[in-house]
Amino acid sequence: MEEEIFSYERLLRFTSAVFSHIGCSGKDAALASRVLLSADLRGIDSHGIARLIGYVRLWEVGRVDPAPAIRIIHETPSTATVDGGSGLGLVVAPFAMNLAIDKARSAGSGWVSVQHSNHFGIAGCHAMMALEEDMIGIAMTNASPLVSPTFSTERLLGTNPICVAVPAGSEPPFVADLATTTAANGKLEILQRKSEAAPLGWIQDKSGKASTDPHELKKGGALLPLGGDREHGSHKGYALGAVVDILCAVLSGANYGPWVPPFPAFMPMPPSMPGKGIGHFFGAMRIDAFRPAADFKTHMDSWLHRFRSALPVDGQPRVLVPGDPEREMEQVRRQQGIPLLAPVIADLQALAEKFGITL
Amino acid sequence: MEEEIFSYERLLRFTSAVFSHIGCSGKDAALASRVLLSADLRGIDSHGIARLIGYVRLWEVGRVDPAPAIRIIHETPSTATVDGGSGLGLVVAPFAMNLAIDKARSAGSGWVSVQHSNHFGIAGCHAMMALEEDMIGIAMTNASPLVSPTFSTERLLGTNPICVAVPAGSEPPFVADLATTTAANGKLEILQRKSEAAPLGWIQDKSGKASTDPHELKKGGALLPLGGDREHGSHKGYALGAVVDILCAVLSGANYGPWVPPFPAFMPMPPSMPGKGIGHFFGAMRIDAFRPAADFKTHMDSWLHRFRSALPVDGQPRVLVPGDPEREMEQVRRQQGIPLLAPVIADLQALAEKFGITL
Repeated sequence: MEEEIFSYERLLRFTSAVFSHIGCSGKDAALASRVLLSADLRGIDSHGIARLIGYVRLWEVGRVDPAPAIRIIHETPSTATVDGGSGLGLVVAPFAMNLAIDKARSAGSGWVSVQHSNHFGIAGCHAMMALEEDMIGIAMTNASPLVSPTFSTERLLGTNPICVAVPAGSEPPFVADLATTTAANGKLEILQRKSEAAPLGWIQDKSGKASTDPHELKKGGALLPLGGDREHGSHKGYALGAVVDILCAVLSGANYGPWVPPFPAFMPMPPSMPGKGIGHFFGAMRIDAFRPAADFKTHMDSWLHRFRSALPVDGQPRVLVPGDPEREMEQVRRQQGIPLLAPVIADLQALAEKFGITL
Repeated sequence: MEEEIFSYERLLRFTSAVFSHIGCSGKDAALASRVLLSADLRGIDSHGIARLIGYVRLWEVGRVDPAPAIRIIHETPSTATVDGGSGLGLVVAPFAMNLAIDKARSAGSGWVSVQHSNHFGIAGCHAMMALEEDMIGIAMTNASPLVSPTFSTERLLGTNPICVAVPAGSEPPFVADLATTTAANGKLEILQRKSEAAPLGWIQDKSGKASTDPHELKKGGALLPLGGDREHGSHKGYALGAVVDILCAVLSGANYGPWVPPFPAFMPMPPSMPGKGIGHFFGAMRIDAFRPAADFKTHMDSWLHRFRSALPVDGQPRVLVPGDPEREMEQVRRQQGIPLLAPVIADLQALAEKFGITL
């Protein structure tokens, strides 16, 4: 498919202008743009600027408040619950992660559950805020239901990602950022565009039978939890997705399970929603709340070095540590720019016209 | 294979007598026995009394101190690091989990990393200590290397389990207790005994090729991370196992990766070990550190009810919530007793003779 390369700076200016036009403050527009584009930089194209028009549509139907009243509604020395005021998750999440970091400074660790938010981009961007503070960072979010529990035909969970970011000394850090499904929805979208079959273990049809049809979701099918089927541990992926849902939403007062609101603004909201918006969960742990930071970094470097130099199987150049591919992609894209597909560019041009700005 | 049923109380008295004979205090012997047998009650037979002789052998070679000096070596209001003094993990883990619970009482949450410990039984037993305190409980441990990272032929990680236990109101609680591999080692042992093929995705041979031979581990092969292969998300299972290793051991000062000491006492210790013993990690979060406990329980009951009543696929009676099979097994085994296989009974009889006690 045709694509065109845009510099990061150009997309950042454009995205920031769009968020300003929907009513974000200059500071929030800049923050939301940095967070959104961190996905494109890291190669997670499904969660970056391709979704900008989706955020604008949520604002158009009144589901995003561009100037939200973000409030702490409950707290202890090491925990808090935040009401995101229906703001952009791209702005609410950094607020909550900063609060977790502040609490970790004084109490050793900080844990923040968030209600009344919207989609927050990639979990990695938020968890990685902890790295420069010499803290371990954790970020999760729930999402609208696309995934069936093991043995069910119903879609009750989102792809519910977990990110854990761990600082190191001289080695690049460890950043595990993973959806709790076999394959992220973005990968399925790529197969849909090409009309190629999906591997067995990614999706099921509406009767709960394994399927290779990438269009199965539109016909009542579902994504499968990490593991794919019971014999390969799908009950574990289901359990992990469920933990994310509970920490993000049952703990905060957001919507959970089948009641999480959809990202596409044209889709109806679920009936009888039990909470507010979608939910997130953030954690920060000071390294030196457990052992001297220098000791930790020496051993973390040794851990990273050992895994990065592990013997690869024939045909593979090397063994990767979680976060390596995304960090390497970011180095390339900061220098060489970000490739966008024609339909994404068309969406951005529509936004440019709507707001009278230049892409 | 032949089996015989023993009452829980009989096995508890016997196990406690064995732990007393190796030098545990009466209190520690009772505690260690309760923890060990919680695995048999919950149907995780590989981690229960079948391992009792293994613990005794660790004591015989001086790798377990039956009267350990368990010490807090670092702490903040919400965190601590514990030196387990080379004690039984069955005793060290409840100490550390209680510390996490105490810290959660005052700071909202408590997080404890443990070095210099030994195997702790099942993670679920420790995480579930939080339930009666109206807290969410978390428990993890690293273990000796049996698992290869994605794309590697080396064994660098243990089966590194994670447990998250969440209290509810009138519904039974949510207890997700999972090894971060496709299949637990115990399941492979069952296939070994029967000489039956394992499903593809559980193990690889020493060259890194997928294998169905359940004896592959003895020939230099490895267990596979949850996901099984790259196409089905094994990099995610690898990432989760790595997170467990880092939180349990790099954070505490225990051994990590390929340096974690083996459970069988006859196996040599890894050369150049970077830390002390094996590591654990525990967490406790007070529900009412986030929202009023009554509100949380109402919504957690609603979450549990929705998932337990989800539509099952044809041929399945119902959809399970993590922890349901183990809780139901415990109800049966407390009433009807615990079945033990002939080789396990032979091991227990050998212990009975050694210590001059009655099984």
